[in-house]
Amino acid sequence: MAAAAPPPPPTPTPDPPITLPQTPTPPQTPLLFTRIRLSTPSDVPHIHKLIHQMAIFERLTHLFSATETSLSNTLFNSPPFQSFTVFILETSHLPFPLDQHHNNPLYPPSTHTFNLDTLLDDPESVTFGSNDTGVVIAGFVLFFPNYSSFLAKPGFYIEDIFVRECYRRRGLGKMLLSAVAAQAVKMEYGRVEWCVLDWNVNAIKFYEEMGAEVLQEWRICRLTGNTLLGYANN
Amino acid sequence: MAAAAPPPPPTPTPDPPITLPQTPTPPQTPLLFTRIRLSTPSDVPHIHKLIHQMAIFERLTHLFSATETSLSNTLFNSPPFQSFTVFILETSHLPFPLDQHHNNPLYPPSTHTFNLDTLLDDPESVTFGSNDTGVVIAGFVLFFPNYSSFLAKPGFYIEDIFVRECYRRRGLGKMLLSAVAAQAVKMEYGRVEWCVLDWNVNAIKFYEEMGAEVLQEWRICRLTGNTLLGYANN
Repeated sequence: MAAAAPPPPPTPTPDPPITLPQTPTPPQTPLLFTRIRLSTPSDVPHIHKLIHQMAIFERLTHLFSATETSLSNTLFNSPPFQSFTVFILETSHLPFPLDQHHNNPLYPPSTHTFNLDTLLDDPESVTFGSNDTGVVIAGFVLFFPNYSSFLAKPGFYIEDIFVRECYRRRGLGKMLLSAVAAQAVKMEYGRVEWCVLDWNVNAIKFYEEMGAEVLQEWRICRLTGNTLLGYANN
Repeated sequence: MAAAAPPPPPTPTPDPPITLPQTPTPPQTPLLFTRIRLSTPSDVPHIHKLIHQMAIFERLTHLFSATETSLSNTLFNSPPFQSFTVFILETSHLPFPLDQHHNNPLYPPSTHTFNLDTLLDDPESVTFGSNDTGVVIAGFVLFFPNYSSFLAKPGFYIEDIFVRECYRRRGLGKMLLSAVAAQAVKMEYGRVEWCVLDWNVNAIKFYEEMGAEVLQEWRICRLTGNTLLGYANN
C-alpha cells in the first residue's frame, strides 16, 4: 500500500517562542509519475492478473482460460510491433529509475506526470508492485498489426486496453491509446482500430472525443470451438 | 475467353451409311477444377485488380488507394501465416498442372472439382488467366493472425474474401473460408473472425450456415487520416 497510502496528518506546530522566520511548507499536491514501456517476459504474471481482472470487469470469466504458461508461449515470439505486442502502464509517486527500460532502442518509454487532485489508494499495490522501487503496474494495452487492402498499408488493432479501477478517470486510458496511435504514425501505418460494446456509451463518448469513428454497420463474425474444429482438413 | 466460352454447337452427324456400332459420346457436363494455393509476389498485379473489383462491389472506391507497388512493399515480408497472407483461388477446365505450387511444403494446395450445372462464361479470363495453362484466377482471401488474450491463443482475422462475379453461387467462397479455418485448426489457433455489413442478410445467412456466430453488440472504432496523424509524438 506504500505507493498510494494517504500522507500522515500534519503534526500540530506550537506557536514559535521567538520570531525567527519559518521555512515555507512545500505544497501538498501529490504527484503521479506514469510510464508506458514495452513488456518483457518477466511481466507475464502481472499481464495474466490484468487480463483476469478485465474478464471479471466484462463479466466474461467463462471465456477466460489463459494461463501464465499459455501467455508465455504465445507472446514474445516476434520482435515488438511485428506481431502481438504489450505495452505496460506503470505508476510511481517518485520519478522513474534509470532502469533497463529507460533506453530501450525499440521503444523509449513514454512518460507523463499528473498532479493528483485527490489522493490515490491502491489496495493492490503489493500485488502489482515491482520489488522495492515503488513502481506499480496500473494497466496494459495489447495490440498487433492488421492490414487494410484498400490502403495497402498495415495498421494496429488493439485487442485489449485496461486500466485498474483505482487509476481510472485520470487520463491513463487515453495515454495508452495515444501511445499506440503515436507508434502507428511513427511506422507510417494507416489506421488504429479496436472494438467497443454498443451499450458502453461512456466508452463510445470517450473514443469519439479522441477522434475515433465508430463504424455502426459492421458486425464481427466468429468461428470457434468445436465448430472451428469441424473444418480440420477441409 | 478460352477457359469459359460455351462449347461449339454439336456438328450434326449424318445417319451412318452402315450399321457399325457408334462410339458413345462422353457426357457433356462441364467440370470446373479449383485450387487454393499460397500467393507469391508475381500474383500482385492480379491481387491489385481483385481488390479494386472488391472496392467497386462495395461502392468504396473513394477509399481505394492501393497500388501494385504499395502491395508489393507490404505483403510477402514475413513467412506465410506469420503475418499478412493471401490465398489465391484458381479455376481451370482441365486438371491442374504439377507446377511450382503443387508440392509447396508451406501449404500444399487444396483442390476441389465441381460439376457445373450451367456453363460458365468468364468475360475476364484473359485478364485473370496465367499464360497458356488455362488456369484463371477467380478470387482471393487475405488474412493475418489476431490474438485472444482470454484464450491466450492466436487466431486468424480475414480482412478480405472475394470471388469474381461469374464464379459466385457455386460454393467457392465457402471453399476459401474453409481453407482459412482448416489452416487455423492445423496451427491449433482458437478462432477465425471477420466482419460483415449488417444489411448484407445473404452474407450473414451464409456465414451462420457455416457455423459462425455474428456478434451483435460489438462496434469497430477507427482512428485514421489526419486524426491519426495528430497523435504523432504523443
